Amino acid sequence: MNFLIIFGGLNLEERYDKGLKNLEKIHPEASKALLESLKDIAPDLGRFVIEFPYGDIYERPGLNLKSREIATIAALTAIGDTKPELKDHIKGALNVGCKRQEIIEVIIQMAVYAGFPRAINGIDIAKEVFKELDTK
Amino acid sequence: MNFLIIFGGLNLEERYDKGLKNLEKIHPEASKALLESLKDIAPDLGRFVIEFPYGDIYERPGLNLKSREIATIAALTAIGDTKPELKDHIKGALNVGCKRQEIIEVIIQMAVYAGFPRAINGIDIAKEVFKELDTK
Amino acid sequence: MNFLIIFGGLNLEERYDKGLKNLEKIHPEASKALLESLKDIAPDLGRFVIEFPYGDIYERPGLNLKSREIATIAALTAIGDTKPELKDHIKGALNVGCKRQEIIEVIIQMAVYAGFPRAINGIDIAKEVFKELDTK
Amino acid sequence: MNFLIIFGGLNLEERYDKGLKNLEKIHPEASKALLESLKDIAPDLGRFVIEFPYGDIYERPGLNLKSREIATIAALTAIGDTKPELKDHIKGALNVGCKRQEIIEVIIQMAVYAGFPRAINGIDIAKEVFKELDTK
Amino acid sequence: MNFLIIFGGLNLEERYDKGLKNLEKIHPEASKALLESLKDIAPDLGRFVIEFPYGDIYERPGLNLKSREIATIAALTAIGDTKPELKDHIKGALNVGCKRQEIIEVIIQMAVYAGFPRAINGIDIAKEVFKELDTK
Amino acid sequence: MNFLIIFGGLNLEERYDKGLKNLEKIHPEASKALLESLKDIAPDLGRFVIEFPYGDIYERPGLNLKSREIATIAALTAIGDTKPELKDHIKGALNVGCKRQEIIEVIIQMAVYAGFPRAINGIDIAKEVFKELDTK
Repeated sequence: MNFLIIFGGLNLEERYDKGLKNLEKIHPEASKALLESLKDIAPDLGRFVIEFPYGDIYERPGLNLKSREIATIAALTAIGDTKPELKDHIKGALNVGCKRQEIIEVIIQMAVYAGFPRAINGIDIAKEVFKELDTK
Repeated sequence: MNFLIIFGGLNLEERYDKGLKNLEKIHPEASKALLESLKDIAPDLGRFVIEFPYGDIYERPGLNLKSREIATIAALTAIGDTKPELKDHIKGALNVGCKRQEIIEVIIQMAVYAGFPRAINGIDIAKEVFKELDTK
Repeated sequence: MNFLIIFGGLNLEERYDKGLKNLEKIHPEASKALLESLKDIAPDLGRFVIEFPYGDIYERPGLNLKSREIATIAALTAIGDTKPELKDHIKGALNVGCKRQEIIEVIIQMAVYAGFPRAINGIDIAKEVFKELDTK
Repeated sequence: MNFLIIFGGLNLEERYDKGLKNLEKIHPEASKALLESLKDIAPDLGRFVIEFPYGDIYERPGLNLKSREIATIAALTAIGDTKPELKDHIKGALNVGCKRQEIIEVIIQMAVYAGFPRAINGIDIAKEVFKELDTK
Repeated sequence: MNFLIIFGGLNLEERYDKGLKNLEKIHPEASKALLESLKDIAPDLGRFVIEFPYGDIYERPGLNLKSREIATIAALTAIGDTKPELKDHIKGALNVGCKRQEIIEVIIQMAVYAGFPRAINGIDIAKEVFKELDTK
Repeated sequence: MNFLIIFGGLNLEERYDKGLKNLEKIHPEASKALLESLKDIAPDLGRFVIEFPYGDIYERPGLNLKSREIATIAALTAIGDTKPELKDHIKGALNVGCKRQEIIEVIIQMAVYAGFPRAINGIDIAKEVFKELDTK
C-alpha cells in the first residue's frame, strides 16, 4: 500500500490534522476567524494555510516555536502591509511563550534592517494588540 | 556636568566602544571589512553601524543575541537584495550560538511569509557561507 | 508636416483618446473617480495614467486584455499596499472577460511567490469587490 | 481507513508525484538543477517546492497553465531580486505555450505597476534566456 | 576625560538635544504625538528617533534640509505602507521651505521608479495633508 | 486641425525629441547603452523611457533637475535591486550639478527609511561609480 509511504512522517489527513492543531494552539481565536473568512471565497487557501505553514513548517523540529514566532514577527514587520497577520502573530508569540518585551525588541530591531517607519508601525500594531488583551 | 547624564547607561564614547565590541563579537571578520570598505567614502556610515545597531540595539537586554540573529536572518531573507548582509548575519548567528539547522529552518520558514523565491535564494546564500566555513 | 510622423500609430491627441477609451472600457466607474480625485491636485498624473498605461501599454497588440489584467492582479497582489488599485483591476478583469474563479486563482498563486499574507489580503480585497458587485 | 479521505483529490504520495510531473513538464531542466542544489542543505525545501506550488497550485483547475505563468512572470518582475526564478519561469512560460512577445509584453507592462527599473531588469533577463535558447 | 572626545561634534546629551530640536523644527506637531504614542510601550524607540535620524542624520552638513525632505518623501512614497510617516514628512517638507508643487512633483516622479499605484497613493496622502492645513 | 491641440506644450514628435535631449543631457553615455540594449528585444520600452520619464517627467517645471535626481537616488536606494539604474542616476546627478557629498548624504539617509542594508549597498554602488569616473 504505497500511500502509507509518507513524507515527513505524515499522511495527508494526519498532516491536515497536525496543521489544524498547530494553528489552533498558536492562534486559538484567529484560526477560526481566518478559516471562516476564507470559507466562501477561497476555502482551499484556508486549507493550504493549515497544511503548508502549520502542517509542514511549524511542525518541523530543528527550531522551537518561540524562535519561529520571533522570525515571523521580524519578517512581517519588515515586509510591511501585513497588519492582520502581524496582529495574529504577536498574539501567537505570546501564546507560545514569548514575553511582551521580547516582541517589542524584535520590532524595534527592524528599524535597523527595514527602516524606522516599519518599526514604528509595528510598535503601533503591538500596542493595539496589548491593549485588546488587557481590556478583555 | 550635564553630559554625564546618559541615556541607556552609556556616554557617547562608551556607546561607540560597546558597539564596536558587539560588532567584533558577532562578526569578527566582517566588521573589519565593512569599516575598511566605508572608510574612504562614508566613514560616518561605518560609525553609525557601530553606534546604532551594535551600540544601541544589540546591546539592549530583553532579547538574547541568538534570538536577535534569528530575527535579522528572517528579515534579511524576506526583504531581498541583501546578500552581503545575510552572509554576515548567518556567520554572526553561528558565532552567537545558533545551529546551522536553526538558520536553515528560519530561511525555509520565509517561504510562507515572503514567498519561495526569497527562501530558495536565502538557502543558496547559506550554502555558500557553510561551504566557505568548511573549506577554511 | 513632421508631427504627423507618429510612433506606435498614434499622434498625441489620438493617444490620449485611445487611452481614455481603454480606461473607460476596463474601468467604467473607477476612471471617473480617479480623474476626479486627481483633478485639483495633480491633473497631469491623471493625464499620464490615461496616456501611458492605457494609451500606450493596454493598447499594444501582442497580449490580450484578459492576460494583461491577470498580470496586473498578480503584480498588485505581490507588491502590497495597493488596495484601491487592486479593487479597480479586479473589476477591470471581470469587465474584460476574466471569471471570478480565475481572479481567485491568480491571487492564491501569489502565496507561492510573495507569501501567504499578500495572498490572504488579496483574497479579502476580492471578497469586498465581489460583495459590492452582488449587492448592486 | 481514514487516510483514504483525501483533500483536493490527492493523497500525499499522489500529490508529490503530480507535483514532480508538473515541475518537470514546466521546467524540464531547471527542476533537476533546483532539487540537486537543495539536496544537501535543505532537501525538504525541494520537496515543498514539488508539493505546494507544483502539487497543489499548478495542479488546480480554474486557471490554465499559460495564464499561471503570465501571473508568475508579472509577480517575479515586480518583486525584484528574483533573477534565477524569473529565468526559470520565462522558460516555463515558453514550455506551456506562451509566445516570446507575450512574455515581453508582461514584463514591459510592469513598468506601470512596479516602475521602469523592474521592467528594464526583467527585459535584460528575458534577453539572456532567449539568447541561451537560441545558441543551443 | 575621554568622554569629551566626541564624534560628529556632539556628546550624548547634546546629540539628544540637537535631535529633539531638529525634530521639533521639522515636525512641530507630529514630534509630540510620536513621542507620546511610543511613551508607554517603546520609549527607547522614541529616543532612537530623536538621536539617530534627527540627532545624527538631519544634523549633518553636506545636504540641506529641503533636499533631505525631498529624498525622504521620494523614499516613503516608493516603499509603500508608510502613510503616517509620509504625512509627517510632507508637512516637514513645507516647514523647511519646500513648495506644495515641489512635493507633488516628487510624488508624481515616483510613478517612474516605483509604479503608478505608489504615486497615486502618495498624491492621495498629499491631498489629505493639504486639506488638513487649509481647514485650520 | 485638432492634433495641434497639445498637452503639456508638446506634440508626439516634440515630446520624443525633448525626452531624448533630456536623456542625453542627464545620462550622455548610459542613454546610448540602454537604447542599444533594448533595441532588438523591446525597442518600445526604450521609446517609453525616452517619452515618459524623460519627455514628460524630467521636462516638467516645478522641480529642478538636481532635486529630481536626489529624489530618484533616494527611491532607487530604498527600493533595492536597482544597481544599473542607481549607477546611471548617480552619474546623472553629478551631470546636473549634485556634489558627490550630496549623493552620499542621500544614500546614508536611506538607512533611516529603508534600513542599513540598503544604505550600505547604495554606498558600495556610489563607490564603484566614483572609482570608474576617477580612473577615466
